Amino acid sequence: SGNSEPVDFNDPYANDPKRHSSLLVRTQKPFNSESPRAVLSEFITPNELFYVRNHLPVPSVDPSSYRLELGGEGLQSLTLSLEEIKKLPKVTVTSTIQCAGVRRNELKEIKPVRGLDWDIGAIGNATWGGCRLNDVLALIGADIRTLEGSEIRHVQFEGLDSDSEKNYGASIPVEKATDPRGDVILAWEMNGEELPRDHGYPIRVIVPGTVGARNVKWLRKVFLSKEESHSHWQRNDYKGFGPNIDWDSVDFDSATSIQELPVLSAISEPVEGQVIDTPDLEIKGFAFSGGGRDIYRVDLSLDGGLTWQQANLNKPTKEPYNRAWSWSPWNLTVPVTKEMSGKTLEICSRAVNSSYDSQPSCTSAIWNLRGVLCNSWHRIRVVVPKDE
Amino acid sequence: SGNSEPVDFNDPYANDPKRHSSLLVRTQKPFNSESPRAVLSEFITPNELFYVRNHLPVPSVDPSSYRLELGGEGLQSLTLSLEEIKKLPKVTVTSTIQCAGVRRNELKEIKPVRGLDWDIGAIGNATWGGCRLNDVLALIGADIRTLEGSEIRHVQFEGLDSDSEKNYGASIPVEKATDPRGDVILAWEMNGEELPRDHGYPIRVIVPGTVGARNVKWLRKVFLSKEESHSHWQRNDYKGFGPNIDWDSVDFDSATSIQELPVLSAISEPVEGQVIDTPDLEIKGFAFSGGGRDIYRVDLSLDGGLTWQQANLNKPTKEPYNRAWSWSPWNLTVPVTKEMSGKTLEICSRAVNSSYDSQPSCTSAIWNLRGVLCNSWHRIRVVVPKDE
Ligand SMILES: [Mo]
Ligand SMILES: [Mo]
Repeated sequence: SGNSEPVDFNDPYANDPKRHSSLLVRTQKPFNSESPRAVLSEFITPNELFYVRNHLPVPSVDPSSYRLELGGEGLQSLTLSLEEIKKLPKVTVTSTIQCAGVRRNELKEIKPVRGLDWDIGAIGNATWGGCRLNDVLALIGADIRTLEGSEIRHVQFEGLDSDSEKNYGASIPVEKATDPRGDVILAWEMNGEELPRDHGYPIRVIVPGTVGARNVKWLRKVFLSKEESHSHWQRNDYKGFGPNIDWDSVDFDSATSIQELPVLSAISEPVEGQVIDTPDLEIKGFAFSGGGRDIYRVDLSLDGGLTWQQANLNKPTKEPYNRAWSWSPWNLTVPVTKEMSGKTLEICSRAVNSSYDSQPSCTSAIWNLRGVLCNSWHRIRVVVPKDE
Repeated sequence: SGNSEPVDFNDPYANDPKRHSSLLVRTQKPFNSESPRAVLSEFITPNELFYVRNHLPVPSVDPSSYRLELGGEGLQSLTLSLEEIKKLPKVTVTSTIQCAGVRRNELKEIKPVRGLDWDIGAIGNATWGGCRLNDVLALIGADIRTLEGSEIRHVQFEGLDSDSEKNYGASIPVEKATDPRGDVILAWEMNGEELPRDHGYPIRVIVPGTVGARNVKWLRKVFLSKEESHSHWQRNDYKGFGPNIDWDSVDFDSATSIQELPVLSAISEPVEGQVIDTPDLEIKGFAFSGGGRDIYRVDLSLDGGLTWQQANLNKPTKEPYNRAWSWSPWNLTVPVTKEMSGKTLEICSRAVNSSYDSQPSCTSAIWNLRGVLCNSWHRIRVVVPKDE
């Protein structure tokens, strides 16, 4: 205790990994941080700059003693070592992971909400390497055919992260888990490197198109059940409610857990209040839709939504239909005209996905007490100085 | 020619079927009509009151000589009689069919659009009986496994309806066609009766969750290809564009054909301008989302969107996850209060689907030159007389 930063051995977070200093930290314990702006219009997010959403301390896992438990109602049980998992056929899936709380700070402006004060950066895109969940489920005889007509409706995941009372847990519908084109994998690699500790070392489930909360890290158990996970985060959190529901009237059982995410976009550059003193205004950002729906269009307005033009979509890959698991970076360069001189421009972005769903204009109607699913038009104001 | 309504044998529409007088006719030749309001909050739409969307005269088909052609690039060809089709295992699917042009009349208020002047009623829900498209495709050796890695990306459908130059045609992505949970069928029954002539007798393809235009009637050909259908309706119609695109700047090749429909709701009762002279205001309507996404919530406002409450969802069935092919009828009864006396109430409905996509508030940003995909909040105004 003579040191300036003593290690507190009673602190469950004492063994958390070191992080990159460019991450925008929201809370230290548990560690939660956003990706920096500069990477939010790049297709692949570097591992060390990928947003971190931890609910609990980061587990320390010894790879040689790590075991994954498999089981389910009416099914056999099986335990796999890391070595056994890595012997299964390896695939890679490039998938965006997004926290349900992205842009919560905007909802807070309307009325208070509970949750981390996220801006636009609780999202990132990476190429995940691992084995198919379907190949793992096949080891206990579970597949789309054997489950047809059974009572099993959900695949539950449990993490090694825990406090004294509970482990983190979540579940996904069996239809997503067993979809031959669903691309759910158990990942041990992130962008070609070993999965970092903050992102679930040694094994994380990747559920493409599905809210981050179901992409369980430090996976220790996969269990097939007629019921959803009983965890707090599945049953009493990460659900959407109407704008009229408050903490006195809320009934978490009445709402359905968030799985696929709605269409979203955000402007990463310029930032709110920026002074534009260049001949051109370079606007950049990302758009993403859950459920594998691709981004068909990003419309941009410089006048608060009165008139629109289309941004350039910069996704370098063409994914199969409804397997568009990656976000679309976009950009547009517009000349700064004499008419803009001395004005405040309200820049709005609205994305349209492959079901032609689009972002709602209005944030007030999507306000909800947990501050999740904020996907209204993204709006920022910039100032063009008077040209004298 | 001494009769008051002579039959013109040169009129290609002379042999169209008789229709129910309660249908709301938009055009006679080709025949296009909406379902009446009274059935728009009922789960099943009766056959004779189901909206009709014809692009061409109704074919007269002799069932004994009817043949369906099957084929595809690199695949064998096969011709099936009606009797052979009906020998395949029979399934039923309850699926809503919706015209892309529903609520076009609202977009027209903003700026002119081209297309039929549809109100909210170009939509209906029925139980369709027939065989799985997958069982038919298996007869020529095409299934999810044999097509994996092939160049085939689309399943094209052609109808018997034609003018002198062309037949109606459309296509869907091969991923939807061959999805084991996609429930695409070739139907010969509608609500337990023989498929009516206006709805495609003897065979119509039902593509659940997909815009009406791809649910090809009077089906004569199924063809698997690396390309979409070359029909006008696939390539140069039924696509979505930004609000800035006009007929001078439009490039149909730059947009993607409409397949899954976005989340939508509409108020069927009361109607615009109605005077409310009852102690309670009974509000009714429907909500629907394409892509098998269920309706999780319908929010209603009586004050133009300032405050909200939830409608009752009245779907009598519980469909499997992401196979919610039917619309959700809804209703809400609200007391007419003293505070409403002498006021105009602006009633708004907004639906939220299983990906938590919701309807945009604003119609102007979704305006498009073809007037399709109008899914902004539905708004109607009613008048409460002064209580004197
Ligand atoms: Mo999250
Ligand atoms: Mo249509």
